[in-house]
Amino acid sequence: MARRAVALLSGGLDSAVAAAEARAAGFEVHALTVLYGQRHAAEVEAARAVARHLRCASHREVAVDLGSFGGSALTDPAAPIPRDRDEAAMAGGIPATYVPARNTVLLSLALSLAEAIGARDLFLGVNAVDYSGYPDCRPAFLEAFERLARVATKAGVEGEEFRLHAPLVRLSKADIVRRGAALGIDLSLTRSCYDPDAAGRACGRCDSCRIRARGFREAGVPDPTVYR
Amino acid sequence: MARRAVALLSGGLDSAVAAAEARAAGFEVHALTVLYGQRHAAEVEAARAVARHLRCASHREVAVDLGSFGGSALTDPAAPIPRDRDEAAMAGGIPATYVPARNTVLLSLALSLAEAIGARDLFLGVNAVDYSGYPDCRPAFLEAFERLARVATKAGVEGEEFRLHAPLVRLSKADIVRRGAALGIDLSLTRSCYDPDAAGRACGRCDSCRIRARGFREAGVPDPTVYR
Repeated sequence: MARRAVALLSGGLDSAVAAAEARAAGFEVHALTVLYGQRHAAEVEAARAVARHLRCASHREVAVDLGSFGGSALTDPAAPIPRDRDEAAMAGGIPATYVPARNTVLLSLALSLAEAIGARDLFLGVNAVDYSGYPDCRPAFLEAFERLARVATKAGVEGEEFRLHAPLVRLSKADIVRRGAALGIDLSLTRSCYDPDAAGRACGRCDSCRIRARGFREAGVPDPTVYR
Repeated sequence: MARRAVALLSGGLDSAVAAAEARAAGFEVHALTVLYGQRHAAEVEAARAVARHLRCASHREVAVDLGSFGGSALTDPAAPIPRDRDEAAMAGGIPATYVPARNTVLLSLALSLAEAIGARDLFLGVNAVDYSGYPDCRPAFLEAFERLARVATKAGVEGEEFRLHAPLVRLSKADIVRRGAALGIDLSLTRSCYDPDAAGRACGRCDSCRIRARGFREAGVPDPTVYR
């Protein structure tokens, strides 16, 4: 029987490729989408489409409203999404779209699900190249979470080791696009835009859109993204 | 201006005393109650009453349905709550009421709130004496989470240190009752039972009830708990 893995699936490009890596490695993949107060339904629908496309063994959606805490342009309807350039990020600081402790929350939920279903492997699509401004995308964070998982759980106490896989952490976006194409993923199913319109079409101007478009361009892979 | 702290408040005895310690230490206390799929509303109402009683600066409730993951008698309506004795716990194992990675999820949410509101101190009522069977109540877990918090956050990256306070971690239940009484907390507002009736009255038989009752008895403090 295939070992189980939990893959966090946001509906974006990176998490789809990370989940596909889990499948390619022979895991039975259980997808988890966390609705943490993002502003748009388009990415949740994309996550469902990706989970079906990857033939995940299960796909759970769990809601937790981090938006009620404030502190991020990504969950605060009143805060502007940075366009064209994010001044803080350009200066090497933390982007306005940083959601406080987001990946800690996401991974803790993935860990809870993993322990409940007997999985010991977690897959996460974080990337430290294009998202170097996010503290919780760095290898130091991932290593600290893996250490935590080993003392936080019944399985860990009983001697089993949780492994946190971040197969994209050191890849460029072009490498991620190439890898996705090589794994046969229909990348048109994924959504990356921070600020899509009601029909789910990408803005083409936010940081996430610009990084994604450049990735396809540099990879020499046709960009299937629908812009408004 | 008083420094801010986030205190996780479950409605139980221990978290109420931990939050009162935060107040006694001079913090402006922001309470957070996580509705993680526990079976009973009584403890949420207790958390609200305790937050008012302690004059917390704010009290947020955030829902995240860990019950949908399965794996615990505490969140699964179909699983029996252990009565009189929990065979696994008696054998030095993990109790049936263990919720997979619960405290990791709770602390990650507290960390997210703390970062959003500018708090650097988290208070948690975990106890490693009476709950030695729960992996995420042990000092090793708390230390690993504190290390994680320092690399997981914008504030941490910018050199500020998060501190995780677990003032009860090495106290007996009798010590906790005494400390609560000394801090002037109305302990009748708190609820500990895993299996209360519809009116919120305690069963008197689950592990949590038995540990609590013994704590009051050994502390020589009148037990205000209403049993059915």
